[in-house]
Amino acid sequence: MYPKKLELLIEQFKILPGVGSKTAERYALLMLSKSKEELQQFAEAIEEISELKHCQICGNIAEDDECIICQNQTRDKQQICVVESSKDIIAMEKTTVFNGVYHVLGGLIAPNKGIFPEDINLASLLERIAKDEVKEVILATNLTMNGETTALYIDKLLQDKDVLVTRIAQGIPMGGHVDYADELTLSKALQGRKKI
Amino acid sequence: MYPKKLELLIEQFKILPGVGSKTAERYALLMLSKSKEELQQFAEAIEEISELKHCQICGNIAEDDECIICQNQTRDKQQICVVESSKDIIAMEKTTVFNGVYHVLGGLIAPNKGIFPEDINLASLLERIAKDEVKEVILATNLTMNGETTALYIDKLLQDKDVLVTRIAQGIPMGGHVDYADELTLSKALQGRKKI
Repeated sequence: MYPKKLELLIEQFKILPGVGSKTAERYALLMLSKSKEELQQFAEAIEEISELKHCQICGNIAEDDECIICQNQTRDKQQICVVESSKDIIAMEKTTVFNGVYHVLGGLIAPNKGIFPEDINLASLLERIAKDEVKEVILATNLTMNGETTALYIDKLLQDKDVLVTRIAQGIPMGGHVDYADELTLSKALQGRKKI
Repeated sequence: MYPKKLELLIEQFKILPGVGSKTAERYALLMLSKSKEELQQFAEAIEEISELKHCQICGNIAEDDECIICQNQTRDKQQICVVESSKDIIAMEKTTVFNGVYHVLGGLIAPNKGIFPEDINLASLLERIAKDEVKEVILATNLTMNGETTALYIDKLLQDKDVLVTRIAQGIPMGGHVDYADELTLSKALQGRKKI
């Protein structure tokens, strides 16, 4: 029913996560109201993304061979925080309490989805641990089933290495109510209690 | 925090309706996983949208000066269905019960948003009514406040013209439950009752 060019754009928008026919249609129709210059700008921004790379050291998104964090000489290379994706690095950096470096797995172990340890960026983590005399590996994968599985797997993998393996704390989030917390979270919060 | 090229793309995605920072970030990060060819295809689809036009007769989206419906000689040009946008035409066409032509307003009268009758595509509707000896104008704007306002305004505008002005029926939707219907819908359904 729509002109072919519009149908093509609707199809393209459907590749975005969580975007179905209706949303893709809304997006495409909005683009119709944009000027030629605005459309060109958008198109260029998309094309230029192909010039981005993954950092050769940690796997983070980078404009050069190494990302800005790995390039930064003031960061402590003996402390590696392991995360699932570059998005998590952004979240961690916002806290400003971490001065080590990162390692991006690019996924989590999920046997039900066919993602096994060899499918995520683990080999280079072992290399880094050996090369940089890493003292601590902080596992900061999500507190979901796949995140936990991945953390446990990495912990086991590093058992015989001379490196401290830690996991980010599990407990009640700031602003959270004890009576609303689920049993698992509350039991983890109890087990992980600290002297004030 | 992200490389500049990625930030630029995130900004671009934010122009889409209902897309905020988080969603734009998700979209942009997904694009990172696409090949150069896929990105080029997407970019081209966006750029080519600028070649689409609005039909000179009805305002519908068109590849040429006139849209496929206005070009179609078998359609009844004496019956015009007035809709808000091209999306509504798609919906109407799917019913396959209408063989007239359309008129796209490109918006609804909304004084609170600063959209007045002169801001929507009304002048050309009057011209068409005079030129094509139109017999019926079907008002198919949304059953919302702005849609109703616009329909009432057009009805008033055409009062002294020799043309039948109708409004799409208001009532309980197919599959709808009487006890779940709001008072307004149910009273409209009662008022609009028909002999079986």
